[in-house]
Amino acid sequence: MVSAPRWLAALTTALGLPENKGQIMYQLASVDANGNPHVRTIGHRGFIEPEGSPNLPLLMCATDIRTPKVTQILTNPHVELIWWLSGSMEQFRLTGVVRLVPPPDAQLPDLPVQSTEASLAFQKMDAQGFEWEKKRVETYDVQPPFLRAGFARPPPGAIIENYDVGKSWPGIVPRAEDAQNEEEKQAYERGLRTFALMFFDPVEVDWVQLKERPNRRTKFIRKGEEWSEYIAVP
Amino acid sequence: MVSAPRWLAALTTALGLPENKGQIMYQLASVDANGNPHVRTIGHRGFIEPEGSPNLPLLMCATDIRTPKVTQILTNPHVELIWWLSGSMEQFRLTGVVRLVPPPDAQLPDLPVQSTEASLAFQKMDAQGFEWEKKRVETYDVQPPFLRAGFARPPPGAIIENYDVGKSWPGIVPRAEDAQNEEEKQAYERGLRTFALMFFDPVEVDWVQLKERPNRRTKFIRKGEEWSEYIAVP
Repeated sequence: MVSAPRWLAALTTALGLPENKGQIMYQLASVDANGNPHVRTIGHRGFIEPEGSPNLPLLMCATDIRTPKVTQILTNPHVELIWWLSGSMEQFRLTGVVRLVPPPDAQLPDLPVQSTEASLAFQKMDAQGFEWEKKRVETYDVQPPFLRAGFARPPPGAIIENYDVGKSWPGIVPRAEDAQNEEEKQAYERGLRTFALMFFDPVEVDWVQLKERPNRRTKFIRKGEEWSEYIAVP
Repeated sequence: MVSAPRWLAALTTALGLPENKGQIMYQLASVDANGNPHVRTIGHRGFIEPEGSPNLPLLMCATDIRTPKVTQILTNPHVELIWWLSGSMEQFRLTGVVRLVPPPDAQLPDLPVQSTEASLAFQKMDAQGFEWEKKRVETYDVQPPFLRAGFARPPPGAIIENYDVGKSWPGIVPRAEDAQNEEEKQAYERGLRTFALMFFDPVEVDWVQLKERPNRRTKFIRKGEEWSEYIAVP
């Protein structure tokens, strides 16, 4: 019987420590069309796995479809992320591929090469008929109204005259059924058209524990469905 | 008269806030020879600038010469780093090029292409006769003994039998003049032969302030010696 990899247990344990409370941000690195690296802080939105495959956990996060990282991951889905837990001084470095779940009607960039990187987890979930779009809408709906408002703004990175321009944007966007007026309803719809999910399938995990004396470093590598593990010099 | 860029003042202010105390770690992203991204947490070791050029500040950090990022930045010196200050909820994203200052006798990887990316700051400091090697030794010497010990270990990433192997490594390595015996002296020398500095010259800085309502985002771009600044949608 397959089981969850030990790094996931370690990560879950670390996240549950009081000293790491609220540390649900990580840094995701990707590469642009010129082959140069980019990295940004992203909020974790949970783990998910194919039915019957706890050995193939995915990390879920979200992005605005209009940000540069979307073009980057569509061109090269290989990414790496760092989850640094400062409370317990642990670093989890995860390497793998990412899949974008854009709004169905999104105008994606017209790319010369659009990768179709194989991922066991994605293939399984596709075969199981996982409803990616349903998950996207659910995730959009459960986030706090101030976060939802971020997706109903003008395109991220667009130049504006001054900071006060932002005062004309909605500060919060309630769910569709809680909308008080047409404006809020439109903001909800506008955000839903830019809200995309990203699912990250790690094949390598590097766990460093800096509070341990001597420091510990453990590497996990997935080949096919199997995780193997070894101890390394930190 | 040239002056320091406003983003540096903003970053210095943020670092001085009590809620950001001790947040001197950032994530540095680079690209490997296959064009895939990598990222890791690194400790900041200070700012430095060419004499008379406060407009060209460099960030200094350190690495073990035996880590994969050394090959990566020698092949492609374009890097990006994220400094996430969770206390004040500010993200500084810095894009630029990095220069490695290895130990003089280091056996660097034999690379097909070794970049010589132009950097105004590095050129100025070279012309001013900045003593890179002296700075490297000084920085090695001022770090706490437990950090210095990290450089005197076997190669990072090398496989070991179990965590206890680490007990045979020095837990602290005093400075040469404080060494109590031959073993400590050798550990000091061993570490000095793997300790490298990295100097990062940013040409673009993206500053996001998530505690502000509405959120603020300011971009700084350097062309030649001049920083320009504009306000953008977060």
